[in-house]
Amino acid sequence: MTSRSGRVVVLRRTVQGQVSADDFAVEERAVDEVAPGEVLVRSLFLSLDPVMRMRMLDGDPSAVGEVVGGRIVGVVEESDDPRFAEGALVLGWGGWRELSTASADFLQPIDPAIGAPELWLGLLGRPGITAWLGMTQVAEVASDDTVVVSSAAGAVGSVAAQVARARGARVIGIGGGPEKCGWLTGSLRLAGAVDHSAPDFAEQLTAASPDGVSVVFENVGARILDASLERLRPGGRVALCGLLERYQGGDPYAYRNFHLLLERGIRLTGFRIDDYTALHASAVRELGELVARGELVSEATVSNGIESAPEAFVRMLSGIGRGKHLIRVGSD
Amino acid sequence: MTSRSGRVVVLRRTVQGQVSADDFAVEERAVDEVAPGEVLVRSLFLSLDPVMRMRMLDGDPSAVGEVVGGRIVGVVEESDDPRFAEGALVLGWGGWRELSTASADFLQPIDPAIGAPELWLGLLGRPGITAWLGMTQVAEVASDDTVVVSSAAGAVGSVAAQVARARGARVIGIGGGPEKCGWLTGSLRLAGAVDHSAPDFAEQLTAASPDGVSVVFENVGARILDASLERLRPGGRVALCGLLERYQGGDPYAYRNFHLLLERGIRLTGFRIDDYTALHASAVRELGELVARGELVSEATVSNGIESAPEAFVRMLSGIGRGKHLIRVGSD
Repeated sequence: MTSRSGRVVVLRRTVQGQVSADDFAVEERAVDEVAPGEVLVRSLFLSLDPVMRMRMLDGDPSAVGEVVGGRIVGVVEESDDPRFAEGALVLGWGGWRELSTASADFLQPIDPAIGAPELWLGLLGRPGITAWLGMTQVAEVASDDTVVVSSAAGAVGSVAAQVARARGARVIGIGGGPEKCGWLTGSLRLAGAVDHSAPDFAEQLTAASPDGVSVVFENVGARILDASLERLRPGGRVALCGLLERYQGGDPYAYRNFHLLLERGIRLTGFRIDDYTALHASAVRELGELVARGELVSEATVSNGIESAPEAFVRMLSGIGRGKHLIRVGSD
Repeated sequence: MTSRSGRVVVLRRTVQGQVSADDFAVEERAVDEVAPGEVLVRSLFLSLDPVMRMRMLDGDPSAVGEVVGGRIVGVVEESDDPRFAEGALVLGWGGWRELSTASADFLQPIDPAIGAPELWLGLLGRPGITAWLGMTQVAEVASDDTVVVSSAAGAVGSVAAQVARARGARVIGIGGGPEKCGWLTGSLRLAGAVDHSAPDFAEQLTAASPDGVSVVFENVGARILDASLERLRPGGRVALCGLLERYQGGDPYAYRNFHLLLERGIRLTGFRIDDYTALHASAVRELGELVARGELVSEATVSNGIESAPEAFVRMLSGIGRGKHLIRVGSD
């Protein structure tokens, strides 16, 4: 029952337009005592996710002054629950905190034999599970499909693209900049990559899919989805996984190609990972097998120290970096 | 082998913005001789369909100077094909013509015992089949659903709404004006009706669906679909059947609630009647049974004489009239 404290990152104000590092503050805060059924966790990695932007948007004052929420992996420092011994690795919702207490009910044990701790925030965690569900259950990808994945160098998109490729589909990734595109066709072995920051983006996408596409796995929305809709063949499917453009605020986008959903008989399905909990274990199992067979490459963009979280979050939203974005906390 | 002629309606020019009766001309034209395998058909009814507007849009010059295309029902006047005797009733693609010759391969016999000739352009024809497919196969409506149907007083919407009601769903119709709304809750026995021309349309829709809705059967798009999207519960389905607003031209609409497709895990499916040909016979059978049981009310807005077609078409697009819009041709 020692008195402990640790650094946290709080949201100082609701975000107007673009997120800035000044919207956050790093503070030292006392950590709650460990009550019965609770565990004290020292964070090893914090997860940075684009969707966090939503809680920071104008008009959600409840987030102001609060520690930024989010997933972590950490190690148990102190436990008052028989399920978690000291030293155990866990996945939790600690947020941007160095130390956190949590009910053991909300922690998940991590098996480092299946994957390193940080993989449980990416490939084997919610981003990977989301990617697997969207591609296999929502888009129902098969070997005769031609697939476009937007934000294909991101945490979800990079897994989605590789799952589709592993199932025999022809996959075209959309990324920002030639370096990311080179990574998509190189390390990820995609059939094509298109740079959405190029002035001739739409023409490049057409050239990369001369016969059209049958599946769109969408993480971004707006002009990027609009360009992909135009390439969809009759009977195509859209797995709507994210709307990154919306997390940046701004007016609703007027899709020029919305009518093609009708004229080409296209199915667009928005999906949420928590609607498919019965399949999460299957997802982790297949993702682990793909990693073991060398079919699934993982990459992370890692910053060091909790104080780096605000800047790292802003960089991620501006499209800098590849794969899963993480903060390494403490010495590990 | 007599020389015959009949009146036709041609498109004089591509349509700029709203369709006007001046965009059309009525002409007397010679009718082709009946070649082997062909049939001469005297039109009884011409079908007016909102989607015809698409071919008249700016930028499709191939339609200019041509007879307006579309379905008809008629009677065989002369036949050089053993499948059709003189006097037989047929469904065909004669367009806006009093007399037409057609290959017998493109004609479908009509059984007047199942329904009157004009019903084969509406309830038992493509509008009815479309409605049945969208509601039963695409939206997969069930008795625990709450359903919103837009353009519910139209040829497709009125059938869709009644099919859902007959399957036990709670159905709210959207129509233009209090008279149509009264017809929806009266003759069609829907649970509710909302007037999209009312200034408080969105509030009315909310009041009519206090617990939200699970299915949207969409014929219109734009602000009407946007209002319905806001009412959709998590896991809801949208059967996208038509985009009437688009047939009127104009800029793409910026959906405020597009993101709800993602956040609420909604499936939106554009569908086309010709993708489901194997089910057309089932559709006609069930629709015929619903008519026989008094579960399906049919109404038509009928104008007399082929010369009335342009004005009638403009009136239909402006929302005047209920149910299937038809031109009665000749004396019958």
